[in-house]
Amino acid sequence: MTQARDGSAPRQLAAIDLGSNSFHLLIVEYSEGYFKTLEKRGEKVQLADGMDHHGQLSEEAMERAMACLAMFARFIDGIAPEDIRIVGTNALRIASNSGEFLSRAQQFLQHDIEIISGREEARLIYLGAAHALADVHGRRLVADIGGGSTEMIIGERFTPLALESLEMGCVVYTDRFFADGRVTEKNFRQAEREARSELASIARNYRRLGWQDPIGTSGTIRATAEILEAHQQCSEGIITRKGLEWLKKRLIKAGQLEGLALDGLKPTRARVYPAGLAILRAIFDLLELESMRYAGGALREGVMYDLIGRNTPEDPRHESVKALVKRFDIDERQQLNVCQTADILFSSARSEWGLTELHRCYLQWAASLHEMGLSISHARFHRHGSYILENADLSGFSRPEQGLLAFLVRAHRRRYPTREARQLPERQALHFQRIAVLLRLAVMLNHSRDDEPFQDLSLTIKGETLILTLPEQDTLRLNDAEREAHYLQEAGITLEVAIRQTNPPA
Amino acid sequence: MTQARDGSAPRQLAAIDLGSNSFHLLIVEYSEGYFKTLEKRGEKVQLADGMDHHGQLSEEAMERAMACLAMFARFIDGIAPEDIRIVGTNALRIASNSGEFLSRAQQFLQHDIEIISGREEARLIYLGAAHALADVHGRRLVADIGGGSTEMIIGERFTPLALESLEMGCVVYTDRFFADGRVTEKNFRQAEREARSELASIARNYRRLGWQDPIGTSGTIRATAEILEAHQQCSEGIITRKGLEWLKKRLIKAGQLEGLALDGLKPTRARVYPAGLAILRAIFDLLELESMRYAGGALREGVMYDLIGRNTPEDPRHESVKALVKRFDIDERQQLNVCQTADILFSSARSEWGLTELHRCYLQWAASLHEMGLSISHARFHRHGSYILENADLSGFSRPEQGLLAFLVRAHRRRYPTREARQLPERQALHFQRIAVLLRLAVMLNHSRDDEPFQDLSLTIKGETLILTLPEQDTLRLNDAEREAHYLQEAGITLEVAIRQTNPPA
Repeated sequence: MTQARDGSAPRQLAAIDLGSNSFHLLIVEYSEGYFKTLEKRGEKVQLADGMDHHGQLSEEAMERAMACLAMFARFIDGIAPEDIRIVGTNALRIASNSGEFLSRAQQFLQHDIEIISGREEARLIYLGAAHALADVHGRRLVADIGGGSTEMIIGERFTPLALESLEMGCVVYTDRFFADGRVTEKNFRQAEREARSELASIARNYRRLGWQDPIGTSGTIRATAEILEAHQQCSEGIITRKGLEWLKKRLIKAGQLEGLALDGLKPTRARVYPAGLAILRAIFDLLELESMRYAGGALREGVMYDLIGRNTPEDPRHESVKALVKRFDIDERQQLNVCQTADILFSSARSEWGLTELHRCYLQWAASLHEMGLSISHARFHRHGSYILENADLSGFSRPEQGLLAFLVRAHRRRYPTREARQLPERQALHFQRIAVLLRLAVMLNHSRDDEPFQDLSLTIKGETLILTLPEQDTLRLNDAEREAHYLQEAGITLEVAIRQTNPPA
Repeated sequence: MTQARDGSAPRQLAAIDLGSNSFHLLIVEYSEGYFKTLEKRGEKVQLADGMDHHGQLSEEAMERAMACLAMFARFIDGIAPEDIRIVGTNALRIASNSGEFLSRAQQFLQHDIEIISGREEARLIYLGAAHALADVHGRRLVADIGGGSTEMIIGERFTPLALESLEMGCVVYTDRFFADGRVTEKNFRQAEREARSELASIARNYRRLGWQDPIGTSGTIRATAEILEAHQQCSEGIITRKGLEWLKKRLIKAGQLEGLALDGLKPTRARVYPAGLAILRAIFDLLELESMRYAGGALREGVMYDLIGRNTPEDPRHESVKALVKRFDIDERQQLNVCQTADILFSSARSEWGLTELHRCYLQWAASLHEMGLSISHARFHRHGSYILENADLSGFSRPEQGLLAFLVRAHRRRYPTREARQLPERQALHFQRIAVLLRLAVMLNHSRDDEPFQDLSLTIKGETLILTLPEQDTLRLNDAEREAHYLQEAGITLEVAIRQTNPPA
């Protein structure tokens, strides 16, 4: 997938975020640590609008979305697939028909869409905001009110210390609390009350962590700063408690969502703005803020910085895997041994099986994590590890990527899971089934948990036939290999074992 | 369930283990820390014998089992249900028709059978063996070769340090390696090779932990000591490597399983003995043992000691819950707060809802563990916690008990899980649905994660109607309670909230 490339050649990168309120596109040219913006677009698709009680995206919203994606598609055409990342957030996380959305969208984009978890969204927002802010010391609070969810992060420089995603957003709250189309004291009160209730579970911990600098990102907070500025209710883009009080009164005076107009408020945002303001007021309230300043840089920029950081030694996925090894108390010596044997096998399989550097990373990550399920139980631990990887919030990994890792861990021992293999995304199925075979062999060869990795081997591959050559009549490994050959048959792989000839015939 | 009782009155207790080779019964009279054996029986049911490739218990084995249980039933008749524990091991763990077995068996026994995990089996075996051995310092290795699994434990005094259950046993290996009915060098070699392969994954870690005293328990090892003793091949019941070599030769000389007879070998064990010996030889080999001594006390005795330890401050389940809180890094302050609020609610509900001291324990355990799923992800963390509790090897808890705990954690937030509630065992359904309601309220009342538990409340219950009285117009808690009332409706519970009258009318 990823090819080695000359680090100094300019490279086009695309980041797209499919939010519950807006879709954003960012295209940059990147070279030697700097990037130049080529294109930046935002469309108020309001994907979450009209989502019914069963969590169905409405056909109207779906059509607005497709029209926008057809337009975005023209911009990403010609950019290498590994330089594009497209993420979906809350509306797609919760929609019961997000499968339908994804298959329709992929027809336009010709690229996978990753539905990211709320915490991953928070991490990326912080990454985007941190790059936009001066690189000073001290803690910041970053709040990002979206259409379907609100992310709250505390961090220092580029490191998030607390990441939360709360289920409240301006589109969803407009549907829930302003459905009568009126902007009233009562509607505000109910929306704020619900938002305070969402915030209650994190407020105390956040206040305990503390911050020096409260920052807001994205549309609702940007609009708030712009309206207050336009009415001389704030200076230097600093939103104050008093300004919010003034704004609420102004909106109630206007009285209706329909045709709501204020200097500084874009007409496309107007209808969902009061609900966004209610959420912002609840944040001020529960976190006891006096002021907040708007800063550019949010999800879309975070996705871009993350994309640049991938496939480098700073790839956040390496850190995530290391953190899991620690959190789930995995036997480090054993995982290092399996990693080393796996790497020998990988080198032998690479060209015959058409594997890339990214596949090597997956094999190493899975080799590091294959025993994580032991923290739950020895029985069926490959399944427990797979469950954790399917469900954990892993920085840097998208859900489909976690699914691939989960498959490798699921497949590493006992019967080869042919049913799960059939459910792999078509584009990746063959490669990941093969990586799973390499992992199985690496685990098998280190079965006796020696101090050192087992390295005295060679592997020859012709299509689906593997010949594993061992140094000697090692009954334990021969016995294991016999059992493994039987399992691999079900995956359509033939495993043969040979003993190295120390005195080859002349 | 458990009634407070006078600690000094004698009490009859029954432990039954349904092994893959034998079923055992033990009945004792217990008083003031001592017990007197009233009845002790072992029957060679060979439940795992003839289990087919789909893991079906054969009808013949099923009938042998029922005949034995009909006999056991007479002994436990009249003993209080909370003083009986019946456990099933490997054959029932893996049988595809164990459900049918359980329902037929329960007709005879009128008591639940718990299928325990391999590690729980190992823990109980160690508990039984440790009580049978002198209470000296130093590490012991305990090996217990059963019909379907072999447990290997390292421990000091009453504390196990390593617990493993391996899938090899004398009944299963007879079917796999001695199916031709012959006792040959080749059959021995194949059985030993497979057993060595099973042992390979633990041998190195075990040798690293080390031990002073290798102990064997249960039938195969007891028979080995008795045969060697009868032929003057050992002294003081110490089995040696040389003795095992001698024994293997003697068995091969006999040549056939059918009619195999040796002094010291009971005819009912003879047919499965060679496979057991092969496993024992593999243990000597991989753990580099020179000798081993047989000791009485195994699973059945462990179940008995465990039963006595329950419902006391030393109940191993308290320790298990504490260990989970630590392992999954649960916020201790929050769980203690929820525990305290839960206890106030419990006291108010107890008599109206017919709850017992054991129910209080479950509520406290679930309150301690309700946030454990956060270690995987915040999204749907109640489900992750429930998954862990369903699958973890928890000392002292049987699988059905873990299922009850998993239900409580699953039910503690968001929608009330009516489908899961319907799947609770009938006898416990109503009580555990009610405990779940108390847990939900306790979590809700501590939603804002204050430093102190929320205690200023009262709860009045009439049937399925709850009146929760709060001290003041606390909008956050009132809002939460409103949402909760909506959720509880689906469980058929009416929740009303009142504000305390500070100046009651005269």
